[in-house]
Amino acid sequence: MYYYVEIKRMENKNMGKTLIFGHKNPDTDSITSSIVMANLEKKLGNDAEACRLGNINKETEYVLNYLGIEAPRLIEDAEDGTEVILVDTSNPGESIPNLENVQIKKVIDHHRVALTTAYPLYFRTEPVGCTETVMYKLYKENGVEIDKTIATLMVSAIISDTLLFKSPTCTAEDEATAKELAKIAEIDIDKYGMDMLKAGTDLSSFSIEEILNLDAKQTSLKDKNSIIAQVNTASIDEVLKMKADLETGMKKIIAEKGLDLFMFVITDIVESNSKAIVLGNSASIAEKAYNEKIIDNVIELKGVVSRKKQIVPIMIENA
Amino acid sequence: MYYYVEIKRMENKNMGKTLIFGHKNPDTDSITSSIVMANLEKKLGNDAEACRLGNINKETEYVLNYLGIEAPRLIEDAEDGTEVILVDTSNPGESIPNLENVQIKKVIDHHRVALTTAYPLYFRTEPVGCTETVMYKLYKENGVEIDKTIATLMVSAIISDTLLFKSPTCTAEDEATAKELAKIAEIDIDKYGMDMLKAGTDLSSFSIEEILNLDAKQTSLKDKNSIIAQVNTASIDEVLKMKADLETGMKKIIAEKGLDLFMFVITDIVESNSKAIVLGNSASIAEKAYNEKIIDNVIELKGVVSRKKQIVPIMIENA
Repeated sequence: MYYYVEIKRMENKNMGKTLIFGHKNPDTDSITSSIVMANLEKKLGNDAEACRLGNINKETEYVLNYLGIEAPRLIEDAEDGTEVILVDTSNPGESIPNLENVQIKKVIDHHRVALTTAYPLYFRTEPVGCTETVMYKLYKENGVEIDKTIATLMVSAIISDTLLFKSPTCTAEDEATAKELAKIAEIDIDKYGMDMLKAGTDLSSFSIEEILNLDAKQTSLKDKNSIIAQVNTASIDEVLKMKADLETGMKKIIAEKGLDLFMFVITDIVESNSKAIVLGNSASIAEKAYNEKIIDNVIELKGVVSRKKQIVPIMIENA
Repeated sequence: MYYYVEIKRMENKNMGKTLIFGHKNPDTDSITSSIVMANLEKKLGNDAEACRLGNINKETEYVLNYLGIEAPRLIEDAEDGTEVILVDTSNPGESIPNLENVQIKKVIDHHRVALTTAYPLYFRTEPVGCTETVMYKLYKENGVEIDKTIATLMVSAIISDTLLFKSPTCTAEDEATAKELAKIAEIDIDKYGMDMLKAGTDLSSFSIEEILNLDAKQTSLKDKNSIIAQVNTASIDEVLKMKADLETGMKKIIAEKGLDLFMFVITDIVESNSKAIVLGNSASIAEKAYNEKIIDNVIELKGVVSRKKQIVPIMIENA
C-alpha cells in the first residue's frame, strides 16, 4: 500500500525571488549547485538567489577562496509561499522545516526521489555521481554559456562527489563532463582535485560535536533509527587518535536522539578505504553487512568509499 | 510529517527487455509515449518494448489507423524484477499492481511526482501539457532523428492533451513543439486535430459501464474517496440522453467501491465547456467548488475543460 503525503501548492506571497538551496550539512555539490543554478535562472530571466542550509565545509571553503567568491546566504527556512528550487536532494528531512508550505518550482538532483507533490513541477534527477553533471546538461540544453567561474564550481563538485572519479558512484558521464569543464576552468584536474579534497580533510578547527555532524545523514535502516556520518581524511589513524572523544560524543547523540545505531565512517581518500566506529544496540548490522568483526568498536570497510552505494543499501539489506 | 514508502530496487531477473508503459485507462499520450520512448531506447541501443495497461480508446485508434501501426502489447503486470520505464504517470495507483517489485529505470511525465524510490533513477517530469513535449526534448538532447511516424504520434498526443491548444494545461512550449512536429508529420494540424478529437467522442460502441470507465481517475479529495471521470464530446446534450443509464451505472460503482463522490464530466471540445453528473454523499463539494447549484444531479462547469487544472485542485480545496 502507498501513502501519499502531498505537498500543496501555495500562493507565492513574496512574488519574485526564487530561493535555491541544497541539503542541510551542505557539501560542495549542494553549495556550488545552488550558485550554478541561480546563475542559470538569472540568465533565463528569472530572479533567483542561491542560499545554504548550513555552514560551509573546509573543502567548499577551498573552492570559494580559489575563486574569490562569497558563500550563498545562510537561511534556516523560507517564508510560507516562497518559490524554491531544490538542488542535490528532494528529501524533506534534509531540507527546510516548512518545505510543505513553500512552492517547489524545480528539483535538480542525482539521488532517489524522496518526495511526492500535489502539483506538476520541473523535477529532474539522474543516476549520475553529481548534481553538477545534470546542471552541465541544463546549461547546454538552454544554450547558456559556461564561464570559467561556473566551470570551476561544477568541476569541483564532481571531483568532490566522485573522490576524483574513484567512487563507485562515478559514471562515465561524470568523468567526461568533469574533463570538459576542467578545460574551461583552466585547472590541472588531478592537482587541483587532490588539493581540494585534502583541504576538506582538515578537521583541526572543529569540535568533536562538529566533526560528528559535518556530513551526518539520518537514515532509517528498516525500523532502526540510525545516523551514518562520514569524514574524508588522508590518514585514518590520525582521525582515530580522537576515538575516545568521538565515542563519547556518539553515545551522547545516541541517547539524545534514541538511535539504534551510529556509524561514523572515516574514509581514506588517497587509498580508497574506510574504517568506521560503530555504536548502538544495532551495531551488529554492520558485522552482518560486511562480514567483518567489530573490534573495539571499529570495523574495517575494505574498498568502501561511497556511503550512498556501498553503505546505506547494504546496511538496509542487513537490518 | 512525511511518510516514505520506498520502492526497493530489485534484481532484474529477466535481464534484457525493458517494458515501457503509461497509465491504466490509457489515453493517446500514454500509448504514443510508450511507442515513442521504446523507439528512443532502441535507437540508444537498449532493448525495450512498448506496452499498455488497458484498451485503446477511439481517439488513439484513429491515430494508429492513420499511421497503420499496431497498438502496444497489452499487459496486466510485469514479472517481479523487470526493468520498466514509466511514461505519462508516476502514480502507483494508475500503474501495474506490483510496481514496488519492479525496477523503475526511468520516468518521463508531465504530472505531479507521485512516488518515492529507494534508489536513484532517471526521473523527469516537466510542468507542460503533454508527455510528448518532454519526449521531443529527449530526442533532441540525444540527437535522435524524429521521423514522420514518430512526429505524428507526438503531435497527436499534444493535440489530445491540450484539446488543440485550448486547454489551460497547454503551454507555449506544447504549442510550439506541436507546430514543429506537424511539419515533419506533414499534417494540417487543425483539420487532423479536429478529426482525431471527434473520433475520440464516438461512444456508440461502448456500454454504459465502459463509458463511465473510459477515462476515470480515482482521486482522494482530502479524506473523500472519489472518482472523477471525463468524456469528450461535440454535443453535451447528445451524451445527456444517456443520463438515466449513466446514473444507474454510477450508483452501482459508488456502492461497490464505497465512494463518497462520483463526478462524470462531459466536455464539449468544440465550445470548450463542460457539464458534470455528480452523485454521492459528498456531491455538494462540487457546488461549493464552482458556486453553482446541482440541478437534477447535473452541474454546469463554465469554461472548464481540464480535469487536472480546473477540477481536481479546486475539488480538493473545497472538500
